[in-house]
Amino acid sequence: MKILISNDDGISSPGIYALAQELKKIGDVTVVAPLTEQSAVGHAITMKSPLRVTKYEKNNEFFGYAVDGTPADCVKMGVRNILQMNPDIVVSGINHGSNAATAVIYSGTVSAAREAAIMDIPAIAVSITSHDASHFSYAAKTAAYFCKLIAEKGLKKGSLLNINVPDIPDDQIKGIRLTKQGRTKWDDKYEKRVDPYGQDYFWLTGELVRLDYDMSYDQFAVDNNFVAVAPIHFDLTDNDTYNEMGGWNIQDIKI
Amino acid sequence: MKILISNDDGISSPGIYALAQELKKIGDVTVVAPLTEQSAVGHAITMKSPLRVTKYEKNNEFFGYAVDGTPADCVKMGVRNILQMNPDIVVSGINHGSNAATAVIYSGTVSAAREAAIMDIPAIAVSITSHDASHFSYAAKTAAYFCKLIAEKGLKKGSLLNINVPDIPDDQIKGIRLTKQGRTKWDDKYEKRVDPYGQDYFWLTGELVRLDYDMSYDQFAVDNNFVAVAPIHFDLTDNDTYNEMGGWNIQDIKI
Repeated sequence: MKILISNDDGISSPGIYALAQELKKIGDVTVVAPLTEQSAVGHAITMKSPLRVTKYEKNNEFFGYAVDGTPADCVKMGVRNILQMNPDIVVSGINHGSNAATAVIYSGTVSAAREAAIMDIPAIAVSITSHDASHFSYAAKTAAYFCKLIAEKGLKKGSLLNINVPDIPDDQIKGIRLTKQGRTKWDDKYEKRVDPYGQDYFWLTGELVRLDYDMSYDQFAVDNNFVAVAPIHFDLTDNDTYNEMGGWNIQDIKI
Repeated sequence: MKILISNDDGISSPGIYALAQELKKIGDVTVVAPLTEQSAVGHAITMKSPLRVTKYEKNNEFFGYAVDGTPADCVKMGVRNILQMNPDIVVSGINHGSNAATAVIYSGTVSAAREAAIMDIPAIAVSITSHDASHFSYAAKTAAYFCKLIAEKGLKKGSLLNINVPDIPDDQIKGIRLTKQGRTKWDDKYEKRVDPYGQDYFWLTGELVRLDYDMSYDQFAVDNNFVAVAPIHFDLTDNDTYNEMGGWNIQDIKI
């Protein structure tokens, strides 16, 4: 199995190393990841400036290719220029921090996997729920398990799995839950500060607000020590609203 | 009607000016837009550095607030710190270039509107299909029309409208089409060049590939001189794959 690995925390992060070590047991791994941390970059791609690619060593061994761009850039570069072929699967992570529920929208980790889905390559994003991530082993084994399962069962073109793993010891994990994307929002604000030159600047701060309390949604499942596996896609069509708007009498009108 | 306007081409772009001039006829407009162009930034937000806000003048008049961040940052900043209340609607655009079909994933313009949807504020993203955008008037009038229609009919929480307008003279536009998000992909590659110091660098290049030829999808509708109005949301759950995976026997297993 040919596996392309990326992330958004950067090629030097512990999470991507743990993932690569595990996936090497089941396939031929190529790592192409951002040179620097790219958290919360969403699905940004680099078009107005060029990219550079450098070889990156870890423990005196070649580990992978570092790209001075975004996670989505890394997947494009990995497929188009480095592998020059579609891998069997793209795995992004292990992200340091949850990408459950609405966080999926902001996540560079998920965007790397989604870029693969846009290219019709099966993909998995895997995250652990703490920014001080310390328990990578269950997440890495889960990624390997789903790589094998997707190879066996197939995954619809355009789909990817968004997997979130509680950052707790392996023996406290209650098991896998197949879930939908939950809903969260942020009660956020910008904290104003004044720089030494008397000018205002603003830091984003805020609390995550949970909106679903149901085990069929990813956020609640990980909050309850389950691994949440949510199949997602990049068709954003809101079919309910589409049907509702059928009654708005806008078809073919001119403004 | 209190209207917050943003975009991704930056506060100095002609598109946002045309939009603001039209929407001032129907409401109380506040413009909060990126200081510099932010195309293809996706739903990036700025967390690891602070933001600054400056007042921006156009034609010797106050036009709006410029934020040195992303489109999504501008909507957060506009709602939380500038208006300090939810506007009735957020309108993002007029983007110079199409955001139909899969382009929606990369679009900063759509992300600004989606940030509003995450805050439960109705939102519209409006784009014209050419990067050399010259015909803004129909797009601006269409945005105003849908602001009024949403005020009358309501829009489900979490939904937004992604509107794409052909960049042609008004009298050649065939009318409005309610559509779903179409599918496109890019036949892209990185063009390698060598810098004056002998180092390689890579530019993203590539062609858009159309995958739908059906008037119920936004790309085909705009290609045929219709205004495409696609209701979208930020629930990425792939229900088909979720149902399919119900047969994978993964519920509650341990790895």
